[in-house]
Amino acid sequence: MSRIAYVNGRYLPWRDAGVSIEDRGYQFSDGVYEACEVRDGRIVDWPRHAARLSRSLSELRIREPMPMVSLYVVLREVIRRNRVSYGIVYLQVTRGVARRDHAFPAGDVAPSLVVNARKLNFERNQQTAAKGIAVITVPENRWERVDIKAVSLLPNVLARQAARERGAYEAWFVDRDGFVTEGAASNAWIVTADGRIVTRANGPGILAGITGQVLRDVIAALQLRLEERPFSLAEAYAAREAFVTASSQIVMPVVAIDGQPVADGMPGPVALRLRDEFHRFSHFS
Amino acid sequence: MSRIAYVNGRYLPWRDAGVSIEDRGYQFSDGVYEACEVRDGRIVDWPRHAARLSRSLSELRIREPMPMVSLYVVLREVIRRNRVSYGIVYLQVTRGVARRDHAFPAGDVAPSLVVNARKLNFERNQQTAAKGIAVITVPENRWERVDIKAVSLLPNVLARQAARERGAYEAWFVDRDGFVTEGAASNAWIVTADGRIVTRANGPGILAGITGQVLRDVIAALQLRLEERPFSLAEAYAAREAFVTASSQIVMPVVAIDGQPVADGMPGPVALRLRDEFHRFSHFS
Repeated sequence: MSRIAYVNGRYLPWRDAGVSIEDRGYQFSDGVYEACEVRDGRIVDWPRHAARLSRSLSELRIREPMPMVSLYVVLREVIRRNRVSYGIVYLQVTRGVARRDHAFPAGDVAPSLVVNARKLNFERNQQTAAKGIAVITVPENRWERVDIKAVSLLPNVLARQAARERGAYEAWFVDRDGFVTEGAASNAWIVTADGRIVTRANGPGILAGITGQVLRDVIAALQLRLEERPFSLAEAYAAREAFVTASSQIVMPVVAIDGQPVADGMPGPVALRLRDEFHRFSHFS
Repeated sequence: MSRIAYVNGRYLPWRDAGVSIEDRGYQFSDGVYEACEVRDGRIVDWPRHAARLSRSLSELRIREPMPMVSLYVVLREVIRRNRVSYGIVYLQVTRGVARRDHAFPAGDVAPSLVVNARKLNFERNQQTAAKGIAVITVPENRWERVDIKAVSLLPNVLARQAARERGAYEAWFVDRDGFVTEGAASNAWIVTADGRIVTRANGPGILAGITGQVLRDVIAALQLRLEERPFSLAEAYAAREAFVTASSQIVMPVVAIDGQPVADGMPGPVALRLRDEFHRFSHFS
């Protein structure tokens, strides 16, 4: 657990790191977030996370709490104070504190900014990747604007909990037409029998993952074949490989879907290769 | 603004009323709430609110933070300490504080409980009711479990803000089939040309409003005709009356929908009568 957090202008010990009960993040889930991988104390792909954060804020018309270059300094300071070499830095911006009323507060309410960081166990993550993870599928039941990285994550919480209770790590949402949209906290990918890598194109219905964006560069550089289109659950069941992408997991092989093994039930070579190559194409800052 | 809030076991001055940055309400909107009208310092229809709260918690498998009878004592104490005669008491329960991870925390994490209360201006509310309010309509875009009174209210926030920007007070969600589901923070009702009162039956797609529940008793007692079924936007445009129900507004006449007057653009007699009679059928505790 992170021991020092940045909260609205101050670096605070954990026990003091709090927000008002009338913070709109708490009462309305009226806020957005980013979570970035930290490697060797540096932030992976910060420029892309910053661009997505700007877009999320813009879509909700929440003011940027500070210039992105200053936010970067805060992130680095939180990483430093928590001595995180490998881990995650998390930031959350909400519309700020105001008397409870659904509509935006009148006047110039300052947005809230919270940043924390924590260590992850690198070896354990590598071991997980070497074994692969299981996913389940659940009906897509989220709101329409999941392209905004908002903290209104209750459906994702319930989906992840359902996965855990069925012995899996992630849940994939499946829309009414039988197509996988994305995971509860990751993007979904398959490799077809003839070696094409398939993932949904960014747009309505999914969050544009940063890891997935970088992975497109990796795939292009390695001259692998990519198809950006929805894939069906039936295709996923029949896939040669499957994997998920997320900042905390990079490329994580999926070895079972709904209790059925993917191919031979072992992590696939494409997923493992993409995982190995990934950080050659990442930006570190 | 409320000056004293109850936060996890303590009555705190407003400036100290905070929750952890890792409260799951803040990071995941993993919590529920209730807002009850206060009249003469008493809570209106508390048993029904308590029952709905129990259901919301049960649906999300969040433990009750304390027995409902104790919660009632806390609510009354917050009302008393804030000297609220007429107003609103608000309570929020979240899954508690835990290291960020979508799935439910392992072990016995205590749920968080926050209660605050604030005065409303009775005369101003009566004046608003005498004039009626305008509503706009927006496409239904929320998640499927809006029957749970959860704090994942971002779509509602955006709908209410859209209403304000179009000179209205409330937004009604309209589903793909052209039927009104409910308001962003209220239930939606119309009175047809031949005097039938129409509102959607409780069930998937809407939150079962407490004020609406009590109003069904009022309607039955007054021997008015009620039809519990979805009504279309076209029916709403052609209605003789329209109104919304919510704990903070009781029965509030709607005099315009999408900029078009409802009938003659004045509050209707059925809505005003139901508003007048309402508290004869309410429970006070």
